[in-house]
Amino acid sequence: MQYNSKQTGIATMKPLTAWLSVALALTAHLSHARYSSPNFNKGGFGPWHPSSRGRPIPLPRVYQTAESTLRIDPRSFHFNIIENECETLQDAVKRYKTLIFKPANFKPCKNVEATCDGGDCLKQIDIHLQSPCEEWPPVRMDEKYLLQLNTDKAKGGATLSASSIWGILRGLETFSQIVHYHDCQFLVNTTFIEDWPRFPWRGLLLDTSRHFLPKTTIFETLDLMAMNKLNVFHWHIVDDNSFPYESARFPFLSKSGSYGQELVYTRKDLKDILEYARRRGIRVVPEFDTPGHTQSWGRDLPGFLTPCGAGNSWAAKEDLPEYGPIDPSREENYAFLWKFFGEVLETFPDQFLHLGGDEVDFRCWSMDENIRNFMKKHNISDYEGLEGYYFRRLLKLLDDISSKKKNYMVWQEVFDNQVPLDPDAVVQIWKEKWENDMAQVTLAGNPALLSSCWYLDYISYGTDWEEYYKCDPENFPGTPAQKRLVLGGEVCMWGEFTDSTNVHSRLWPRGSVAAERLWSAREAQDGDFLASRMNEHRCRLRRRGFPAQPINGPDFCEHLKAP
Amino acid sequence: MQYNSKQTGIATMKPLTAWLSVALALTAHLSHARYSSPNFNKGGFGPWHPSSRGRPIPLPRVYQTAESTLRIDPRSFHFNIIENECETLQDAVKRYKTLIFKPANFKPCKNVEATCDGGDCLKQIDIHLQSPCEEWPPVRMDEKYLLQLNTDKAKGGATLSASSIWGILRGLETFSQIVHYHDCQFLVNTTFIEDWPRFPWRGLLLDTSRHFLPKTTIFETLDLMAMNKLNVFHWHIVDDNSFPYESARFPFLSKSGSYGQELVYTRKDLKDILEYARRRGIRVVPEFDTPGHTQSWGRDLPGFLTPCGAGNSWAAKEDLPEYGPIDPSREENYAFLWKFFGEVLETFPDQFLHLGGDEVDFRCWSMDENIRNFMKKHNISDYEGLEGYYFRRLLKLLDDISSKKKNYMVWQEVFDNQVPLDPDAVVQIWKEKWENDMAQVTLAGNPALLSSCWYLDYISYGTDWEEYYKCDPENFPGTPAQKRLVLGGEVCMWGEFTDSTNVHSRLWPRGSVAAERLWSAREAQDGDFLASRMNEHRCRLRRRGFPAQPINGPDFCEHLKAP
Repeated sequence: MQYNSKQTGIATMKPLTAWLSVALALTAHLSHARYSSPNFNKGGFGPWHPSSRGRPIPLPRVYQTAESTLRIDPRSFHFNIIENECETLQDAVKRYKTLIFKPANFKPCKNVEATCDGGDCLKQIDIHLQSPCEEWPPVRMDEKYLLQLNTDKAKGGATLSASSIWGILRGLETFSQIVHYHDCQFLVNTTFIEDWPRFPWRGLLLDTSRHFLPKTTIFETLDLMAMNKLNVFHWHIVDDNSFPYESARFPFLSKSGSYGQELVYTRKDLKDILEYARRRGIRVVPEFDTPGHTQSWGRDLPGFLTPCGAGNSWAAKEDLPEYGPIDPSREENYAFLWKFFGEVLETFPDQFLHLGGDEVDFRCWSMDENIRNFMKKHNISDYEGLEGYYFRRLLKLLDDISSKKKNYMVWQEVFDNQVPLDPDAVVQIWKEKWENDMAQVTLAGNPALLSSCWYLDYISYGTDWEEYYKCDPENFPGTPAQKRLVLGGEVCMWGEFTDSTNVHSRLWPRGSVAAERLWSAREAQDGDFLASRMNEHRCRLRRRGFPAQPINGPDFCEHLKAP
Repeated sequence: MQYNSKQTGIATMKPLTAWLSVALALTAHLSHARYSSPNFNKGGFGPWHPSSRGRPIPLPRVYQTAESTLRIDPRSFHFNIIENECETLQDAVKRYKTLIFKPANFKPCKNVEATCDGGDCLKQIDIHLQSPCEEWPPVRMDEKYLLQLNTDKAKGGATLSASSIWGILRGLETFSQIVHYHDCQFLVNTTFIEDWPRFPWRGLLLDTSRHFLPKTTIFETLDLMAMNKLNVFHWHIVDDNSFPYESARFPFLSKSGSYGQELVYTRKDLKDILEYARRRGIRVVPEFDTPGHTQSWGRDLPGFLTPCGAGNSWAAKEDLPEYGPIDPSREENYAFLWKFFGEVLETFPDQFLHLGGDEVDFRCWSMDENIRNFMKKHNISDYEGLEGYYFRRLLKLLDDISSKKKNYMVWQEVFDNQVPLDPDAVVQIWKEKWENDMAQVTLAGNPALLSSCWYLDYISYGTDWEEYYKCDPENFPGTPAQKRLVLGGEVCMWGEFTDSTNVHSRLWPRGSVAAERLWSAREAQDGDFLASRMNEHRCRLRRRGFPAQPINGPDFCEHLKAP
């Protein structure tokens, strides 16, 4: 694969004197690698693949950098906020000073004088936030930023500017990545970056039902998402196996449905997680999956779940569970859902709520006489139709609850089963051979999100990320209007085989590949360049204290306290 | 799969009144699980598979346990050493008191009175070590032990006895596993265990060349090995990619060949690791793989490696590395190896040294004119013959070095290429379709070790351990005499894609399956019973502070400080 600087937007900039394109600068850089090993050198000495130095991931849209470097004295460097200001910005500036100069697992050289006074010193960055801070990141948050370090335009100075706080956050992350520690000094190449995401919705799904994840693991995940410019935390919070969400109105749900009283997200935990995400420009979209995947809801809710043919020999042979999906024939269940979702909508500020709708097991519905009678009475001829009835009722009651209009998203089965959806309901595609599904959803006029390519809970031996990089959510047959309905995609980390012991190492830096596909230009296709940035990024994340695993074969990370 | 108590040796014990076989006790126990879910219940509420409580892994050879439990007051309980004593024993007793009652990540109930005075209290265990401690564990270390807790034989009392310190260590581990914390109390079932390993050599290979592993990760691995009764740390210390072994005589080897000066095992580190292993009854067998896999040796040793056809167009086309294996034609190289291995034999006290010999790339030898001339002169007709020449010289010089006789082990290629080996040289089988290889090696009269089944660096999605459990090193066509030459096996964790971020979670509890196959009776075949003990063991390891990963689907661990 070849990196093509023109297609990434670099050619859209007027060439500046004394500037090299990133592709040229990179060539120069790689020859400085400690080992002059060829790429993926599997027989020789040293790492299999070189690591970049001071290169960001995901790749910015317009990225010009020169070989010349500026030195930074960490004791005197400061971020200079000169326009709008808010707590989110102050907090971010403080956080990034630590991430750049004193990450948790960083071991600098001993006894090095870091004073910097000359003209090759970067002493401060002016931060121009051009409008007041929004409190919560909206669905189409403005993430564009401009980062200029000692360019002609900003001679001797450096600026980070953006229209929105969310752009400033993304720019700070980029700056923190291009600063690198080399020869016992903090350095940064003179750089011009103009950057914005290709897709507005770049999500990560965590599943806290199959295995509970402690609050700290969720905080860490939010940090790691910010470090990869992912902006939606899709919280698959409850499922069959456990119900760790503490409901204020119905506390018995987690009392009877969680794995244990300490394995629950309390009301305070929920608030803390929302705040932690907000400060990083990350939306939190909770998923309360119904009518299937609800075994853990029904422990103390008699009649909520469909009894699944107890004593019936066919049910025994089919190995059916004791209960099936929510019983859609009982009016009381809609009354409960009205109250429950009313609370959920109050708890989570995001515009979107995920309603699930995947993998509804029709067998249990088919075993139940009441349900069969109900279907006759309502003229419902099949179980897809019954699911449709359930969803129409659910969507209606949700509309009734909320004074301000909320939006919903669902897994693709709801669409596939022809449930009538609002035109702004987002459909999430997860099945294989997704191209046709994306085409169908967008043909119907609904926004679409792709996850099929990025089920990172599936693992295999070795360097497995090339397919994640090749996958492009717009690569399906459709009109430009259809393509405009592609909101982005989500990495999914289902929890059957992951908990806090392995969730970070399995996600990173594998998830960075999807993050780049969703942020960077469609034309960013150079796998070797990505591999070298992944190697650097993994070590960057390790220095920041996260167990990002090796992904491109033998290598090592410098300047780690605990290697 | 059905657990058959007779075949595991339980039936060889005289039945004791009021005792149940472990199979019966287990049945009773499982119905107490918090969730009465069927095994591998993938549709329902709670964990997919139940977890045992107070069941050891690997399964003891003779294991009788009753439903009745003894309570333990952690403040007053003590180990009472009443025969031989030594520092290794004192150290172990101290270590196990912490592991049982205060493991690093254990969160007990708050404010629980744990006083225990009645007849159902276990107040102490008498430790009978029947002979003085050996300093270093020998190849056929005696690991047999007898553990009796309030049995008829030892009414009201409890004893752990063994002929050797190594048996006491294994018995302490078993005791630490059958003690469990339930209803806010430490409990242990009344138990009779007589236990000894099926195979004397139960190893784990770590590769510290592809990725450096810090000393703490090696200490942790030794702890985890002891917690699974593995007794040989096969240290694949150097390879092509890096040379982290600090040689006293040739310090330039790691100076030029390591990934960095902090990514080296110093002389002190080596000593500390040997001591840490010794105290846990673990042998350390170092591997210095030659004549291939030696790229990192040759950075400052001109002439050591075979130049690999620089400038030759065929070599370029074949993508050959700059250098190939050790040049076997140069007399100076044997002089170096004589000095180098002289130091290695002084550094590592074990009776065995692993000489490697795998995957020698003959192409570089074939490119070299000097080598071709050397072969003509010495009447060597092919490259297998040249490898044979190299190994004969190596074995001869090793014999000349050592005043006391040492033994060697090699990868199977050395045997396959018909290099004449000492009758006591151990051959390690790693290739697929291993049955015939095991037959050939033992037919030739050499001891054999199996690794083919347990390459745990290979990963896949989901519950992947069933094949590890089914694999039996004696399942090959051969005579009883041949079977007696099977020393055991080794789990291999090659380091291409693992470092300290993921090596523990990938190894445990997957490695426990191989550990059980190598320790327990051949007839231990009940996968469901093993799964329930693995679930418990994983949580036990997590309470002890190690990131053992989920392996049987959704579950949770109780009483963790950080869940």
